[in-house]
Amino acid sequence: MTDADDTARHNAKMAKKKAARDKIMATKTDEKGLIIVHTGKGKGKSSAAFGMIFRCIAHGMPCAVVQFIKGGMSTGERDLILSTFSDKCAFHTMGEGFTWETQDKDRDIEMAQAAWEKAKELIRDPANKMVLLDEINIALRYDYLNLEDVLTFLADEKPEMTHVVLTGRNAKEPLIEAADLVTEMELVKHPFRAGIKAQIGVEY
Amino acid sequence: MTDADDTARHNAKMAKKKAARDKIMATKTDEKGLIIVHTGKGKGKSSAAFGMIFRCIAHGMPCAVVQFIKGGMSTGERDLILSTFSDKCAFHTMGEGFTWETQDKDRDIEMAQAAWEKAKELIRDPANKMVLLDEINIALRYDYLNLEDVLTFLADEKPEMTHVVLTGRNAKEPLIEAADLVTEMELVKHPFRAGIKAQIGVEY
Repeated sequence: MTDADDTARHNAKMAKKKAARDKIMATKTDEKGLIIVHTGKGKGKSSAAFGMIFRCIAHGMPCAVVQFIKGGMSTGERDLILSTFSDKCAFHTMGEGFTWETQDKDRDIEMAQAAWEKAKELIRDPANKMVLLDEINIALRYDYLNLEDVLTFLADEKPEMTHVVLTGRNAKEPLIEAADLVTEMELVKHPFRAGIKAQIGVEY
Repeated sequence: MTDADDTARHNAKMAKKKAARDKIMATKTDEKGLIIVHTGKGKGKSSAAFGMIFRCIAHGMPCAVVQFIKGGMSTGERDLILSTFSDKCAFHTMGEGFTWETQDKDRDIEMAQAAWEKAKELIRDPANKMVLLDEINIALRYDYLNLEDVLTFLADEKPEMTHVVLTGRNAKEPLIEAADLVTEMELVKHPFRAGIKAQIGVEY
């Protein structure tokens, strides 16, 4: 087979792929506000969610972030939103470090409840096109928040076109059931196992 | 059991968790430039990588992005780097749309090679603390780039403290072997299946 044959065959294959893809995409016509979940033990849950917030900022869509646990999103990302995009994206940090760092259950519950009240306020405001509830799954896992309350609110009060993004490992099954878009970040290999510490730019 | 007992038990458990975590983290003392791979069929591979670029920008660490395939990162993210952070992050888009959209193998190979030449130049420059090779796995998968060449270059010429991030589905096994940090984004549920189209702020 000549190189020209090979190229022609490749191009024909790609043309077929494109036609198939165009046909599938033409059937996707609806728009709606999505419930989006990023879970799993791997990295990137908060960063990928933040990527969507960043897209909204780029497109001039008002959006908001509530951090349920400080430390989910890196301080670098947080500082940059606060310093550069605070007019485009409301940002609220309610948690005070990971739960195993605070060791005060009552305060953790109080913080989580306050964060949830703020989240409801931001989601109810139809001006916000996307609301990121960063690390809310941690608060749900420890029952600092009631899962039923969260699901009922999202079903009954979320404006139809608003996207709500919920992150954190160990997403509960009923939340996954209720969600439209779920991604699990799976840890395949991590440098901590080779004795490498958390590094600036990578982990924070 | 009273609420006070419950709280005391919870706090003791958290204190134990924190002590265990602190002990583990104290053993992680080394720093090095990492080879980081984001792969899998789920969303967020490019966005989470971009989150790290964003952290570098926030910390004043010079960094760079080479897009091997246009469309991996959203135009929103790209436009915002180009418009707001072009002095902090070099940005090069070499690809011209997904391969099944171009249907010209020779041109795709040429583009991928040009992107790789640019990538090598950016990685060799020790001023860059992180270089993101966005969607390079697609170019490697179609053999537009030689995997051996890429691995040899990373092993021999990458400055010790430089992080290199490689994204795209179907990462080849030898790349995963060579990497320090690998995350697989797994698709659990996607709204396309329910007839919902790609939406602004979410997919682009």
